[in-house]
Amino acid sequence: MGEEISNKQVILSNYVKTSVKESDMSLRTSKIQIKIPSGCDDAVLVKNLYLSVDPFILSLMKNQELDLPSFTLDSVCLVFILLGNAGFVTFILIVSEKQQLEMYELETENQRGETVYVSTASGAVGQLVGQFAKIAGCYVVGSAGNKEKSAFTLMKVDLLKNKFGFDGAFNYKEEQDYNAALKRYFPDGIDIYFDNVGGKMLEAVLNNMRLNGRVALCGMISQYNSLEQPEGVHNLINAIVKRVRMEGFFTSDHYHLYPKFLEMVVPLIKEEKITYVEDIAEGIESAPGALFSLYSGRNVGKLLVLVARE
Amino acid sequence: MGEEISNKQVILSNYVKTSVKESDMSLRTSKIQIKIPSGCDDAVLVKNLYLSVDPFILSLMKNQELDLPSFTLDSVCLVFILLGNAGFVTFILIVSEKQQLEMYELETENQRGETVYVSTASGAVGQLVGQFAKIAGCYVVGSAGNKEKSAFTLMKVDLLKNKFGFDGAFNYKEEQDYNAALKRYFPDGIDIYFDNVGGKMLEAVLNNMRLNGRVALCGMISQYNSLEQPEGVHNLINAIVKRVRMEGFFTSDHYHLYPKFLEMVVPLIKEEKITYVEDIAEGIESAPGALFSLYSGRNVGKLLVLVARE
Repeated sequence: MGEEISNKQVILSNYVKTSVKESDMSLRTSKIQIKIPSGCDDAVLVKNLYLSVDPFILSLMKNQELDLPSFTLDSVCLVFILLGNAGFVTFILIVSEKQQLEMYELETENQRGETVYVSTASGAVGQLVGQFAKIAGCYVVGSAGNKEKSAFTLMKVDLLKNKFGFDGAFNYKEEQDYNAALKRYFPDGIDIYFDNVGGKMLEAVLNNMRLNGRVALCGMISQYNSLEQPEGVHNLINAIVKRVRMEGFFTSDHYHLYPKFLEMVVPLIKEEKITYVEDIAEGIESAPGALFSLYSGRNVGKLLVLVARE
Repeated sequence: MGEEISNKQVILSNYVKTSVKESDMSLRTSKIQIKIPSGCDDAVLVKNLYLSVDPFILSLMKNQELDLPSFTLDSVCLVFILLGNAGFVTFILIVSEKQQLEMYELETENQRGETVYVSTASGAVGQLVGQFAKIAGCYVVGSAGNKEKSAFTLMKVDLLKNKFGFDGAFNYKEEQDYNAALKRYFPDGIDIYFDNVGGKMLEAVLNNMRLNGRVALCGMISQYNSLEQPEGVHNLINAIVKRVRMEGFFTSDHYHLYPKFLEMVVPLIKEEKITYVEDIAEGIESAPGALFSLYSGRNVGKLLVLVARE
């Protein structure tokens, strides 16, 4: 028998209707034995030190018709840990066959001199996408924002320009007309849009796309929260007129590129050509609040929950 | 001086607001000299025998903000003739440098055993797409319909199955729920959608798409006519969840494939492995009515106007 210890888990209490509330989740502590069950020779017991809090989680907390393994009530909320899907728990058992590994796709297929727009550009993904596009010689503009006009938003927009080296950055919450904002930053149009938000911003981008433009559909955070009915995109005709390619992707399809990613990114970080910002909440108890802050636009950079220091 | 003859032209009288009316166009007869102007050594004078009436024309008759060379009032309505863009006129002068050649893209990137759905499948493009997909070994279902329930619609659906050899066909006008109709014909989902209609049908298809599905955006006829505001597509999140690629295309980008197309299709027609239906209106005077019939869903197959027999 292994040592018996308590394992903290974050449980889904209610299906989320529109906006997530902290009370949709609850904390449960159970006793587990630190031991690999017999017959699981291939298994590794992992103690979570950090949890990753990602926008897509909300989709799984709704009782909706998507071809995704959505959460069930009274079960652990799934998150990404360092190298795999896991739960909002302190201890997990990773069985190698079932391990689903994840990474972010790098290939934005950009070319030197092309114009790139990144939404939620100060987030975990956006901050890297923009910097990679800059290294590839592109003109890069990002947008960020949060619910209240605050010094925090200014900080995000400031980060994009001064820390991440974007050519331009704007607070979308201050723009009455996304079309006009995009025309200001892209007078000759957008070649590549890395879409983290969907909805009205995607619609505005399609109006401003250049011939043979490409849209990487990474996330649609504007559609996950606060909306009974997702916003419609009314101008897909632009995809024909401008021969635009739009493609959705999931990190899990591209894990084979992870070694290549590390090979590329680690030296760039060491040479200080790539930088990143993390936003760390302490303790597994803070996971529901961290998730809530993600949809309120309160986080900056990669949002993590520190479960244990060792 | 060349021979002076009368040249009939169809002129745009009013910008179209929602639905096209025959009265939005008018016929004008002018005198021209059958002669190549001096300094145009590269030019050929062409007498139009047939005009092609295509769904996209309506987009050009509206005074809207699309990056397209839309028609101007009191000017000739543009159509495609055999090998280029021209006007709804009897005689045209084709100057080689300005010649913009057109063809339909064949590459649906389909693979044996994949499931293919084609909308407006009895139209000029749909009838060929479906047959090519059948030859490539795919399971093919098409839809067709018109405004009134009529024997004509039955004929279209009948054509799809019996003349073009589709595996299934349905009249979308008889379906209350496009989602349910698609689930009936594609219980395991759709791999490839050749979209000629856009709007609500595209939305239903996205719900029924399989992982790594592809959508060729060819036209959005449901959005050109009858709608003050185009319909929104509210479920683009499916493109992420299912990693769907959607890409718009124009015939003019693919003209280099035209010789290859002929090489492929001519023997298939001779061997009766490919067939086609044409719908021919007589006389240039019938062009406005033919265009109107296109948006009413009254035509079957490729819609042409016979201008002259020789």
